[in-house]
Amino acid sequence: MKNVKIYYGDFHKEEDYEIIFNKNRIDIVFHLISTTIPSSSNKNIIFDIKSNLINTINLLNIMVKYNCKNIIFLSSGGTVYGHPDNMSKKKESDSKNPISSYGIIKLTIEKYLYLFNYLYGLNYLILRASNPFGEYHNNLKQGLIDVILKKVLNREIVEIWGDGTVVRDYIYIKDLVKIIVDLIEKEIQNEIINIGSGRGYSINNIIKIIQNEIGNFHLEYKDARQVDIPYIVLNINKLEKFIDINLTSIEDGIKRTYDSLKKSLIGD
Amino acid sequence: MKNVKIYYGDFHKEEDYEIIFNKNRIDIVFHLISTTIPSSSNKNIIFDIKSNLINTINLLNIMVKYNCKNIIFLSSGGTVYGHPDNMSKKKESDSKNPISSYGIIKLTIEKYLYLFNYLYGLNYLILRASNPFGEYHNNLKQGLIDVILKKVLNREIVEIWGDGTVVRDYIYIKDLVKIIVDLIEKEIQNEIINIGSGRGYSINNIIKIIQNEIGNFHLEYKDARQVDIPYIVLNINKLEKFIDINLTSIEDGIKRTYDSLKKSLIGD
Repeated sequence: MKNVKIYYGDFHKEEDYEIIFNKNRIDIVFHLISTTIPSSSNKNIIFDIKSNLINTINLLNIMVKYNCKNIIFLSSGGTVYGHPDNMSKKKESDSKNPISSYGIIKLTIEKYLYLFNYLYGLNYLILRASNPFGEYHNNLKQGLIDVILKKVLNREIVEIWGDGTVVRDYIYIKDLVKIIVDLIEKEIQNEIINIGSGRGYSINNIIKIIQNEIGNFHLEYKDARQVDIPYIVLNINKLEKFIDINLTSIEDGIKRTYDSLKKSLIGD
Repeated sequence: MKNVKIYYGDFHKEEDYEIIFNKNRIDIVFHLISTTIPSSSNKNIIFDIKSNLINTINLLNIMVKYNCKNIIFLSSGGTVYGHPDNMSKKKESDSKNPISSYGIIKLTIEKYLYLFNYLYGLNYLILRASNPFGEYHNNLKQGLIDVILKKVLNREIVEIWGDGTVVRDYIYIKDLVKIIVDLIEKEIQNEIINIGSGRGYSINNIIKIIQNEIGNFHLEYKDARQVDIPYIVLNINKLEKFIDINLTSIEDGIKRTYDSLKKSLIGD
């Protein structure tokens, strides 16, 4: 993808959008931001609404004003579906009962994107990503694989909430980025699409893979968190209809992530 | 239903809830308020979010604080489903793509009620009502049947947006109230239920009924509004599983409404 430029501004400041859109011709907005994570969002729902939902509406209003017609929105495959009724993989059309404000706001933004398309012809591409992991991850609060790898590298104790049976769908970051680029280049618009590996791994599976690929480390099991659903794996049939996908194995993804982390630490 | 008390306060003032909940033991909250209607909500979405969604979260937080465990929420059968893919009656589990911020906020409040039930054991009853009409209606901006009847009584011209083919599900207000009371007395909790007649009438059907039952009047057809979906009728099978319903015919409902309006005008 060519001509990708990054403009800097504060998500909380409408004036910043105004300046950026006024000075530049912007074809596509990538909305990847969130001010909260699932576990924090339930503690201050009003903040979640104001900082994520209202700021997004301000952004959409500015896009309409400056006739910017395309937005890619990273929604959340891990939280919008909520508690599973059964162990089947989640399709885009399945029922949605989030157990975090984070998931509700993602879903609500999806609905507003549909509305802005209906009212103003704004084209959206809603991507319900599963759990990305890999290089450039920069967060010690979120992202199981990256957090474990950093702790392993620092010889810290790895804390697991619950008994490790919680199952998630992980996707290697470079696969996720390539899929997004491919969808944009194919001009897929006004669709809601799950992006994940379509495969479920429990935390214990992930621990075993890391132990096999990298080595042993210290583990501590803590109480489970109410915000964690027991099982979520995405059905990616819709994605596979739009583009060919060729995913990195979780073992390779973990090894590459670890090698890159090691290099960046040595480089410091 | 006994012991129903009305407490007065401002929906925008958290202090008001605080005073009311602090002074009184409240078992059930009836959330029937909206600061917007569908057509107005799209013009100021930020206001819709702040005044309806954030105020509702403030109310729910106060309910949790004072251990009030039950809320009845009047959602919107007419707007949460959005554009129909086909002419079938809408089931509660059908897909939801509102074309108004009003509908999105109703849906989002539904999701937060589910979340508050999950987090705090707050019991909800979400009622997706169709279009109520009848006595005590006090609004000249909304409510086709009542607005027409008032204009007929005042010998004003009745304006219709579009060609009159728009189909809606109408429910006589006394039927709606009885259904709500019956559901509460049966202690139906944590359910989302459509409440309507399950029958569709076009605006032209309604006009013909009023002409037959009451008499002729002047009509003017205007441009259609973007906020009006062409068809929405509710599937009420779920409601019928919970309680026996016995609906007033639309002709009788319209006659009673007209007689009551006439009386109130003569009484003035």
